[in-house]
Amino acid sequence: MALITETQLRAQLIKGLPNPFPVTEGDKLTPAAADFLKERGIPLQRIERSLAAHTLLNLAEPTTHIPVGVSNRHVHLASDHVDALFGSGYKLTPLRELSQKGQFAAHETVMITGPKGSIAHVRILGPARGVTQAEISRTEGFELGIHPPVRLSGDLAGTPGMTLIGPRGSIDLPEGLIIAQNHVHASPEEAQQLQLKHGDRIMLQAMGERPVIFADVTVRVSPQFSLDFHIDRDEANAAHLSSGDTVQLIRKHIMMTNAERRRL
Amino acid sequence: MALITETQLRAQLIKGLPNPFPVTEGDKLTPAAADFLKERGIPLQRIERSLAAHTLLNLAEPTTHIPVGVSNRHVHLASDHVDALFGSGYKLTPLRELSQKGQFAAHETVMITGPKGSIAHVRILGPARGVTQAEISRTEGFELGIHPPVRLSGDLAGTPGMTLIGPRGSIDLPEGLIIAQNHVHASPEEAQQLQLKHGDRIMLQAMGERPVIFADVTVRVSPQFSLDFHIDRDEANAAHLSSGDTVQLIRKHIMMTNAERRRL
Repeated sequence: MALITETQLRAQLIKGLPNPFPVTEGDKLTPAAADFLKERGIPLQRIERSLAAHTLLNLAEPTTHIPVGVSNRHVHLASDHVDALFGSGYKLTPLRELSQKGQFAAHETVMITGPKGSIAHVRILGPARGVTQAEISRTEGFELGIHPPVRLSGDLAGTPGMTLIGPRGSIDLPEGLIIAQNHVHASPEEAQQLQLKHGDRIMLQAMGERPVIFADVTVRVSPQFSLDFHIDRDEANAAHLSSGDTVQLIRKHIMMTNAERRRL
Repeated sequence: MALITETQLRAQLIKGLPNPFPVTEGDKLTPAAADFLKERGIPLQRIERSLAAHTLLNLAEPTTHIPVGVSNRHVHLASDHVDALFGSGYKLTPLRELSQKGQFAAHETVMITGPKGSIAHVRILGPARGVTQAEISRTEGFELGIHPPVRLSGDLAGTPGMTLIGPRGSIDLPEGLIIAQNHVHASPEEAQQLQLKHGDRIMLQAMGERPVIFADVTVRVSPQFSLDFHIDRDEANAAHLSSGDTVQLIRKHIMMTNAERRRL
């Protein structure tokens, strides 16, 4: 007995929809879901409840969904850079906690400047780190006139520099500007539940108006982390996602096994 | 005898890379391609040339690549709206031709206004059409304070309205604002070469720094069309694509056949 919606059906497209589509007594399809099947020429098939468990798709299996966290542009500052921008001995003040333990968005912001333009009010994420790093979207790179590579946080070798401007000073950095590579954060328990490990690369699909698949997402596991798929604003808009939406885990490894390949 | 690059290998991830990876005499891997295989623990396997034809992936098959056209926000105007915005009897003047025959970007622009803000200098595409329609990105929707649905061009029922402002007047439209649904344009000959037909829905993958898969792309075939994958600026930035790049056709139908499904 289930309510079957178009969103659920759409999410299953990649795995394939059964044809005919099995329904048991009491199942209800929304009008959009019924249209969705009809458009594809997939008839409904009434089946016994005992059979249904084996043939119905796991439309609601909770562990295959990962919540989305959309990151706006932001800056992580080394403590000597906090001093340079806000004055000697300055301490960042938390505005709100982030989903990852101990991390916070600070009240303080800086301006990032490049050869073509500036971006004001860029939020600082605290606490202060070892190395200063700024994460922007590709869209914002066009505004600055800087085209940074797509990198995981902390992987800064060879990245372009920028100027940061604070209320008490500015700094010219030779490197540290990146477009954040999308990734999943998970605690060891969450990773185990999803049968994932640190360093795995997975495929995730958005399930809304724009069924984009993120085909190579790195998994990072740490006791400090909570389950979250981190994307930037360009990715969120292209996949019609907002923070709090979920994406579906459609493949645990981006590489097919030899056995899978032989079957294609 | 081929030069094998990381980009080519990455494009094949979705289909699966052979393990070991077959190479024939004379094949060369770029250093990045060699690293790419090494990171994944895939050794090279030297094989006879006669076998190679069957086992090597079709890395360079030209018909599986489709050129990308990135569309900025733009407006199509009905002729009475050209009159209302630019003055009675006004004729739009072509600035440059577009990839689709007879279409042009006009010198003229308008301003789109919503409850939260405005976007100036929105290019008009000519010639004048039956119905006025504006296509913006989701990012721009946030600027206007309007959140239009993702639609194919011309499918305007129930879409939100907007105000258009030109040099000689303004119009309030009750509907016509959309986020363009990505789609492939093809001539009948190009469609045949790709074994595609009007209305098909396909999967396309970006092959650069962000290997995004567009999982449900509609194919539109017409003698007026040239082969092009139309995406908006959000999609371009999320997939790190620019006009002139190509995407790879990775699945001709988004639905799996029953036979394929049984094998999973």
